[in-house]
Amino acid sequence: MKTRIGIVGYGNLGKAVEQTVLSNPKLRLVAIFSRRLVKSKFNTKIEQYDNFLDYKNKIDIMILCGSSKNDLELQTPELLEFFDVINSFDTHSKILSEYKKLDKLANLKKHRALICTGWDPGLFSVIRTMFLAIGKNNPVTFWGKGVSMGHSDAIRKLPFVDDGVQFTIPIQNAMLNAKNQIDDKALPKHERVCFVCADGKYHKSIESKIKSIPNYFKGQPVKVNFVSAEKVIKLKQNMSHRGVVFETFKSVNGFKCNFEFKLSTKSNPELTASIMCTYINAILNLKNLKLCGCFTPIDIPASFLFEKTKYPFLLKTIC
Amino acid sequence: MKTRIGIVGYGNLGKAVEQTVLSNPKLRLVAIFSRRLVKSKFNTKIEQYDNFLDYKNKIDIMILCGSSKNDLELQTPELLEFFDVINSFDTHSKILSEYKKLDKLANLKKHRALICTGWDPGLFSVIRTMFLAIGKNNPVTFWGKGVSMGHSDAIRKLPFVDDGVQFTIPIQNAMLNAKNQIDDKALPKHERVCFVCADGKYHKSIESKIKSIPNYFKGQPVKVNFVSAEKVIKLKQNMSHRGVVFETFKSVNGFKCNFEFKLSTKSNPELTASIMCTYINAILNLKNLKLCGCFTPIDIPASFLFEKTKYPFLLKTIC
Repeated sequence: MKTRIGIVGYGNLGKAVEQTVLSNPKLRLVAIFSRRLVKSKFNTKIEQYDNFLDYKNKIDIMILCGSSKNDLELQTPELLEFFDVINSFDTHSKILSEYKKLDKLANLKKHRALICTGWDPGLFSVIRTMFLAIGKNNPVTFWGKGVSMGHSDAIRKLPFVDDGVQFTIPIQNAMLNAKNQIDDKALPKHERVCFVCADGKYHKSIESKIKSIPNYFKGQPVKVNFVSAEKVIKLKQNMSHRGVVFETFKSVNGFKCNFEFKLSTKSNPELTASIMCTYINAILNLKNLKLCGCFTPIDIPASFLFEKTKYPFLLKTIC
Repeated sequence: MKTRIGIVGYGNLGKAVEQTVLSNPKLRLVAIFSRRLVKSKFNTKIEQYDNFLDYKNKIDIMILCGSSKNDLELQTPELLEFFDVINSFDTHSKILSEYKKLDKLANLKKHRALICTGWDPGLFSVIRTMFLAIGKNNPVTFWGKGVSMGHSDAIRKLPFVDDGVQFTIPIQNAMLNAKNQIDDKALPKHERVCFVCADGKYHKSIESKIKSIPNYFKGQPVKVNFVSAEKVIKLKQNMSHRGVVFETFKSVNGFKCNFEFKLSTKSNPELTASIMCTYINAILNLKNLKLCGCFTPIDIPASFLFEKTKYPFLLKTIC
């Protein structure tokens, strides 16, 4: 019995999830739901998002690939009423409120919502939780070099900006400090390098506007480069990203311990798709145990990422 | 209500666990059980191992600090009849059979056994399981530079050896190959550097005997250094160790991804103690859910390493 999958949203992430699902013989991709008129290179059935109710009992798990900001907060509860759902919600500050809202609904509807299943939040959340539990010091995370979607969006929304992209770059000395547990609050952790296309007469005002966007840029080291439309398009094709989590602590007699987890990918959407699809097994394991509710990766034992039948193999070979 | 802890075994690990438990205000250390006549620097009550039954209902969790080879296979089931237990069993090849045996007993006696809670197996097992689930390639582990207890014991058991210690050292080119997914089976992963104290007339025969011990040394690069008794004692005081797990894989369109988890400690027993004591919360969470049986770290969600009340904090701050 193949697990029947639906994909909601058909941008870079949705396309990567489509291919990842198609490459897995245990899964059957039933349909992709989109609000736009799109076509699949792989002849996957495309449906208008609003028709999702027609697929009740025809799809087991919906994988949500929209943006945290505009889509997931609305679509996740909407779909959770009828399906198990997986998303990669990544607005860190709203995870607790999303969790509470979805947990209530999932228990009511006897479904499972597995949220925040990307690499950060997601894989990095599991790592940080284990690091903090063992080391008792706050773990430190660095991102980049890689494109930040949120920061790029913030730039593109400014008036007179034609196009733009922002690379997050970790500051090497701040990483060294984190490794050596030196707490230099004055030293920022990341540099924000922007490439913007706009008419020359607006360059000065755009640069100062970017640098004053609260939360995203204000108070941080920001470099703004004005470039051609072609250059921005080329830069946006670079999908690589990386990140690292450090934990430095002392054991009971003051002996130093270091944990370090790092990750790099040449395709951020494809890595996120791989991770999201890995959590399909977690949903199936939860379902077998008749567990309902909202879950995040920190609630999922590592063994749940495999089919139950693989458990002896894991104990014999992987442990 | 403090959780009442007993410690079984009072070598380097037992002593580190004693101090780690004493440093945690949520725990009460009731007694240390040993087969030898020992004394605690911290005035902890010392009991003969065979008196453990007197502590039924007076201790919640027994932390087992003996060796996998001589103690844990016997003591873990013996104590599991009356207590919840945590051990750091580390004979990789026997984990599955231990699990099956203890799971049956734990369910019968309505207790919990949490086994293999060191850094490898343990923390590294969780990492390898997640890496394999996402990347689908076998993760590669390197250990060292650090002392291997098993290999040192094997040397010390040879006739005419007065004392000895073995350092495991990863081979740098093999690590590079693993990172770059080059599969060179001819290249060994570790070098085994031995320091042995013995009468000069036996040096040649001891060296050839060491190099022919199956599983431990045979077919691997081994260096044997003959040194003074004082030198061996000094080398044995070096408790530092390190290790790394790599996963290199390609996402669905062939884009390269790298995961790397590394760890270093200046005190191997103290790091193991920190990890073992972290799993006390896991036992308490399992107990609250009325779950019995045998568990390994791959069965424990990261959030179970914290008290249940910390869950909103984890979602708000750590995810």
